[in-house]
Amino acid sequence: MINIAIFGFGAVGKGVAEVLHYKKELIEGFIGKYKVVAITDSKGSLIDEKGLNLMEAIKIKKNKGFSGMKTLEVIEKVDFDVAIEVTPTNVHSGEPGLKHIVKSMDKGANVITSNKGPLVKAFKKLERLAEKKGVSFMYEATVGGAMPIIKLAKNDLAGNEIRVIKGVLNGTCNYILTRMEREKMTYSQVLSEAQELKIAEADPSYDVEGIDSAAKLVILANSIMRMDASFEDVEITGITKITPESFEVAGNKNYTIRLIAEANKEKGFLKVSPRLVPHHHPLAIEGTMNAALIRTDLAGDIVVMGKGAGKYETASAIVSDLIEIYRRD
Amino acid sequence: MINIAIFGFGAVGKGVAEVLHYKKELIEGFIGKYKVVAITDSKGSLIDEKGLNLMEAIKIKKNKGFSGMKTLEVIEKVDFDVAIEVTPTNVHSGEPGLKHIVKSMDKGANVITSNKGPLVKAFKKLERLAEKKGVSFMYEATVGGAMPIIKLAKNDLAGNEIRVIKGVLNGTCNYILTRMEREKMTYSQVLSEAQELKIAEADPSYDVEGIDSAAKLVILANSIMRMDASFEDVEITGITKITPESFEVAGNKNYTIRLIAEANKEKGFLKVSPRLVPHHHPLAIEGTMNAALIRTDLAGDIVVMGKGAGKYETASAIVSDLIEIYRRD
Repeated sequence: MINIAIFGFGAVGKGVAEVLHYKKELIEGFIGKYKVVAITDSKGSLIDEKGLNLMEAIKIKKNKGFSGMKTLEVIEKVDFDVAIEVTPTNVHSGEPGLKHIVKSMDKGANVITSNKGPLVKAFKKLERLAEKKGVSFMYEATVGGAMPIIKLAKNDLAGNEIRVIKGVLNGTCNYILTRMEREKMTYSQVLSEAQELKIAEADPSYDVEGIDSAAKLVILANSIMRMDASFEDVEITGITKITPESFEVAGNKNYTIRLIAEANKEKGFLKVSPRLVPHHHPLAIEGTMNAALIRTDLAGDIVVMGKGAGKYETASAIVSDLIEIYRRD
Repeated sequence: MINIAIFGFGAVGKGVAEVLHYKKELIEGFIGKYKVVAITDSKGSLIDEKGLNLMEAIKIKKNKGFSGMKTLEVIEKVDFDVAIEVTPTNVHSGEPGLKHIVKSMDKGANVITSNKGPLVKAFKKLERLAEKKGVSFMYEATVGGAMPIIKLAKNDLAGNEIRVIKGVLNGTCNYILTRMEREKMTYSQVLSEAQELKIAEADPSYDVEGIDSAAKLVILANSIMRMDASFEDVEITGITKITPESFEVAGNKNYTIRLIAEANKEKGFLKVSPRLVPHHHPLAIEGTMNAALIRTDLAGDIVVMGKGAGKYETASAIVSDLIEIYRRD
């Protein structure tokens, strides 16, 4: 029996709980019996060592009923095998996720996370700690949502040297750029529209200034390309200065403009910036999709595309990590 | 120490041998020490239980020096842990690969193959035999060359239900269609060109009649979608009847024409046929590339693209299978 703890119960945490509930039979076919023994949020927790009723947990509005022990105390006192860390990300401090992950590993639990902050802040430290403690550390959901990229590069392309990764890693920016081009609207017009549609946040700077893309790039550079990169190494330009006229000029030569995150091991740079992309190029992807091009020595260029966000999409990545850890066949 | 046997020593076999030679240090970092103890072709074999000198083997012209025991005898008499079966494919009989795989599994060896024939002919039987014997059966290289699709769907998307796979799975057909559209040439003009460039074979029917695409589709349907499909279940139309005028008509509506292989579990069909594809769609890929769209319940649509053929590209898939079997971290 695998005991699961979920730390963070916003959209992603709820998505994971739903999938663990509705797809229990399928998932147990891969990994055997499991139960969720703890769910926490910033206010407290739900605990049942015999296994929580996930449907009831999901139905609780605004997490009312979460009380008592908070995450750090839960890690100390509750018996679990794997922590699913899905609290909000902070790329500067890495907290509170970083502490949750370290303490969970310290007690010998496997960790799966969608939280970029801890990896941006302390990837090497976490990787070494996982190795020292003999636990698994999985983070497919930190980059590209449902789009497989970390396991794809580390497993499916194992034996290849990964030389360059270039990608559209932020769906909000890509939505804004796609609409600006198609509708000949200004940046601020599309931003308002995206905010109404909840595609952009009230404070959009994390996305539109390129910070989210840079955080993901650092994770890819460290985990897939072994580049020992930190957030400060990324040269970042956002999309806020792009004008409808730029699209017109680009379009005349059959190009579009996309926010491209590139980690280049050969030339030794990490960069997030708006770049010209030929209309037929796979990175000229539209809407909120993500795409990545992985340049290798044997396999040549491999491209992958998928939905970069969404509760079930992120849950998909988390569940695939869970299955990879415990798969029995 | 892992003992490897390579059955078949054409372009793919030689590509695998080169990669096992030049990237030995990297690969041994994942799986530990290995040596190649046997290489066979239709004329005979090279055997050295202490480990063959792969560079010498690769340099032998036209496999002169291959003599003595043939593959079936090698399987009986040589001690190996994993067979890499890369003999030419025959989608109707599955031979000679099918016998090689069955006999290798029978003696308890793991099997990695790029050979579509045995899987098209007897996927279920081989899967059951592998399970019964407790050996691994890996076949990433049978579909899409370097493009990861089987491990991507089975591992990276584990927990998802795969509902539809649609793909451009034959680089030769895609090259011909791309050139017909771009250069307004006829089918037979481009075919001659492709034959000169060795992109198409002297007898191109296996590719242009859709047989190769159908074989790959059967493998995807059985391995990823658990559809219990056979070659006869695929409705097949090739590309030989397509005219330059069709591209013109399609182009006027911003469509192109691609040979699409589709396995649809919901509607219960398997089909290979030329279809209209919007110019901006990921399956409107150009040249000899392959692309596949995987429709899932949680992750939505995932697209992957890569080089569909080539000795190092196919070797990449085979080596990633080898690493998956023996990975130690």
